[in-house]
Amino acid sequence: MACHPLKQVIEAADKAITEEDFDALMEFYADDATLVIKPDLVATGKEQIYKAFVAIAEYFNHSLVVKQGEMHVIQSGNTALVIMETVLETSDNAGVASCISRRATYVFREEPVGKWLCVIDNSYGTDLLGAM
Amino acid sequence: MACHPLKQVIEAADKAITEEDFDALMEFYADDATLVIKPDLVATGKEQIYKAFVAIAEYFNHSLVVKQGEMHVIQSGNTALVIMETVLETSDNAGVASCISRRATYVFREEPVGKWLCVIDNSYGTDLLGAM
Repeated sequence: MACHPLKQVIEAADKAITEEDFDALMEFYADDATLVIKPDLVATGKEQIYKAFVAIAEYFNHSLVVKQGEMHVIQSGNTALVIMETVLETSDNAGVASCISRRATYVFREEPVGKWLCVIDNSYGTDLLGAM
Repeated sequence: MACHPLKQVIEAADKAITEEDFDALMEFYADDATLVIKPDLVATGKEQIYKAFVAIAEYFNHSLVVKQGEMHVIQSGNTALVIMETVLETSDNAGVASCISRRATYVFREEPVGKWLCVIDNSYGTDLLGAM
């Protein structure tokens, strides 16, 4: 299902994260969206999510590059569950590169038709089990 | 978040699967729900989902017992993503028992308030990646 419109939406959102353009990034989230920051910590609403991404950028030394791997979309009406390999490339102050691969789960809602918004952003996927 | 109302909802749905009471089971699904039967096969709508559960019961020799393990609920307004350990106990014609543990992902919608319906049922979770 790689041709699902959500593929382009997620690519554009990840580009905004990589470019630290968080105003553009907020356009991809619903007003009541929830972001899992860490297994025991969530941000709800655009204000909290914006602040979380500022902190995440700082945490990764402003080096974060987000890339997409394999993607599956399971759709039911105006709701879609996305199962996706997400690759995070980072480098530390000494320039040492790291690569983190996550098996993420995202819930999107199409509202209005043709406009998909992220309502739940859980990049940890099922790794939440046993993580707390 | 084990005290979320969805815990009881999912327990009741799994009891209906175990008892092969598929009429009762259908009450837990939205009309446009999607069930992942196998990584490359989905059922959409109650008629298809009902038939899928009849076939699943047959496949497991009418021995299927579904139990819940650890559960996390990530909620955004009237939408919830459930990350859950689901245990399937079965036995074959010779009485040999098997136990399958899955890290499932379910999307529920609360509509109207207080009534949660399953819109996406993906018991394979992120194991869909690399499965096709």
